[in-house]
Amino acid sequence: MMRTHVDWLQSADELLPRVRETQPLVQCLTNSVTTNFVANALLAVGASPAMVDIPEEAGLLARSAGALLVNLGTPSGEQREAMLEAATAANDAATPWVLDPVGVGALPIRTELAQRLAGLRPTVIRGNASEIRALAGHGAGGKGVDASDEVDDARSPAVELAQSTGAVIAVSGAVDLITDGHTVVRIANGDPLFTKITGAGCALGAVIAAFAAVGDDYLAAAVAACAAYGIAGEFAAHGADRPGSFAVALLDSLSAIDGPAVVERGRLS
Amino acid sequence: MMRTHVDWLQSADELLPRVRETQPLVQCLTNSVTTNFVANALLAVGASPAMVDIPEEAGLLARSAGALLVNLGTPSGEQREAMLEAATAANDAATPWVLDPVGVGALPIRTELAQRLAGLRPTVIRGNASEIRALAGHGAGGKGVDASDEVDDARSPAVELAQSTGAVIAVSGAVDLITDGHTVVRIANGDPLFTKITGAGCALGAVIAAFAAVGDDYLAAAVAACAAYGIAGEFAAHGADRPGSFAVALLDSLSAIDGPAVVERGRLS
Amino acid sequence: MMRTHVDWLQSADELLPRVRETQPLVQCLTNSVTTNFVANALLAVGASPAMVDIPEEAGLLARSAGALLVNLGTPSGEQREAMLEAATAANDAATPWVLDPVGVGALPIRTELAQRLAGLRPTVIRGNASEIRALAGHGAGGKGVDASDEVDDARSPAVELAQSTGAVIAVSGAVDLITDGHTVVRIANGDPLFTKITGAGCALGAVIAAFAAVGDDYLAAAVAACAAYGIAGEFAAHGADRPGSFAVALLDSLSAIDGPAVVERGRLS
Repeated sequence: MMRTHVDWLQSADELLPRVRETQPLVQCLTNSVTTNFVANALLAVGASPAMVDIPEEAGLLARSAGALLVNLGTPSGEQREAMLEAATAANDAATPWVLDPVGVGALPIRTELAQRLAGLRPTVIRGNASEIRALAGHGAGGKGVDASDEVDDARSPAVELAQSTGAVIAVSGAVDLITDGHTVVRIANGDPLFTKITGAGCALGAVIAAFAAVGDDYLAAAVAACAAYGIAGEFAAHGADRPGSFAVALLDSLSAIDGPAVVERGRLS
Repeated sequence: MMRTHVDWLQSADELLPRVRETQPLVQCLTNSVTTNFVANALLAVGASPAMVDIPEEAGLLARSAGALLVNLGTPSGEQREAMLEAATAANDAATPWVLDPVGVGALPIRTELAQRLAGLRPTVIRGNASEIRALAGHGAGGKGVDASDEVDDARSPAVELAQSTGAVIAVSGAVDLITDGHTVVRIANGDPLFTKITGAGCALGAVIAAFAAVGDDYLAAAVAACAAYGIAGEFAAHGADRPGSFAVALLDSLSAIDGPAVVERGRLS
Repeated sequence: MMRTHVDWLQSADELLPRVRETQPLVQCLTNSVTTNFVANALLAVGASPAMVDIPEEAGLLARSAGALLVNLGTPSGEQREAMLEAATAANDAATPWVLDPVGVGALPIRTELAQRLAGLRPTVIRGNASEIRALAGHGAGGKGVDASDEVDDARSPAVELAQSTGAVIAVSGAVDLITDGHTVVRIANGDPLFTKITGAGCALGAVIAAFAAVGDDYLAAAVAACAAYGIAGEFAAHGADRPGSFAVALLDSLSAIDGPAVVERGRLS
């Protein structure tokens, strides 16, 4: 089935109210830097965060959660064990789960962990261009390619990674690129201020998880989440042109944004 | 001694300036999600936070701290050891301490830990209705009962838990219920936005600890803290109707609120 | 070479745009309370934060980072190991690194750790007066001396500590005092609201690291960072007189401040 841009945006119009109505529990094993922002972003968009990240609890909750986020930003030893436990349980119980392989390629512990997790059938993998390239085996990660090149450079690795893992791949950048290995969707929403606050990518990973919790079509869920999130950032930047204010306004906008705004303002290609 | 609503609110009018004058050191062993917000809430209300949560330091500080908060939101192995050490030391040194049994009943590691900690004579236990019910042995915790029922459903478990542990029990919800096992006080202050930010309950636990540090009547301290905190939330919601702004405004309001405002606006029953 | 106040401020005028142009990677091993604020402060001032704090990764990154921050606020066992690894690597690779010995003197684990780290040739040590006194062997730390005395009380210990460690010492207070063991510079910028938010000192440590990453004269870098940071706080306090708003405005001001504003408003003595 070929879907048009209107189809994708109408998915957002359906999924966003469904997140708010059902308030899915999104379990997060995430980094110590942005866990507060990630939890607040989930609450703002209408989901229920549960940052349960210790062994013996993480796997248990992952069986019943609406969705799971595993973010490798600061992977302590205890968290690494809990991440593998939770991803295995999510896989087993068919809980959709999002892998955010922060810093993969550049640092050894998380690179090995990301590769193991990528083999546990994540539903969505979200990262910047250099992370997706590194996880797909192209390049060493690091500070990444120039922003103007990043979508084109990451396209082939993203398609390959989708095909090898079975996951939807969401590459974040000035233009986002999302693919299931067959269809490729680009989203040109967002604002440069996203790069001036910590946790913008982490929170997007969580919002993707919230959307994946309420729909079986994970490509549509990832596209809807990225569009809604980028547009919320545009609204936030209207009233806040500095990073401290922008982070606050982004949470406000995530709580205010509705489906029709996404349909009207989504810039897909 | 039967106390009237006016008596309770006048306690707040005495305790709040005492927190600001004496700036009690409130030691917190709390979760990684909201530790920043908890520390800022304590500073805003006038206390001195000290987030000392490692073994060999936690117990030492708990002996000399003004009060201690133990919050089970993300209890890593190292933190669990430090929590038991700190609670034991607080108990031994007569340091008032608050237990916030986040997620008890729903998850096994923290459930066992909460039960052990509840046996170490906490001064106050603060939780939502489902957590208090679970800790009292009624029900399995989880996402909790419907908000409209919660006060009535939690009343008997709260009274039982107060009697079995010797603690003051503070049940947070649309209406807060506070009891020492004999007297029951309800407080109808607050705002629905408290449920749209992470850490609203965690920060309340810390504020209760700050009030407990400056007064020997812990029921009065808990009532005063809950009233002041709820009213600060009402002021915050006046100027901020979205969650990002509300969290910022709540810290501002906690630094601005004074005793007369609590006396005037407190809604006890 | 004797430098005048104008010289110091002109250093700030050179270093601040250099941070923004080169966006140095500042690796942080910091506490769980303020890691989000520290990362956002680095982004606001123009640097690239990387909160890599686990063994086997921390040392590796410290070899190539622009600068390193080691903050002892909540030193878990795993972090302590990573801190020693990172400081050793920074020392070996000539990466400038800042030690922030939070709570040293008052608590045993971090006191021993701080002493070991102080022996690994930190480039800058930043703390309040009681921490610098404790690390220099004068007094036991704790809540510290009275604000009006602190600069004078810390002057001799700071000079001694600079001479024994080879580090530039930055003592934070109502007036900051910075010394390399020979020259002593005082900076009277800042605002009392810095003491009403958590992480103001932690973020200053990180900003010093960012400035140290772009200049070889570490005394000049520390003076420039403290002046710019204090002046950003003054701008922030103009529009925000309560702590929640002030923290947001401080990030905004850090992103807005420029060299000429530092030259114009710097109050050195």
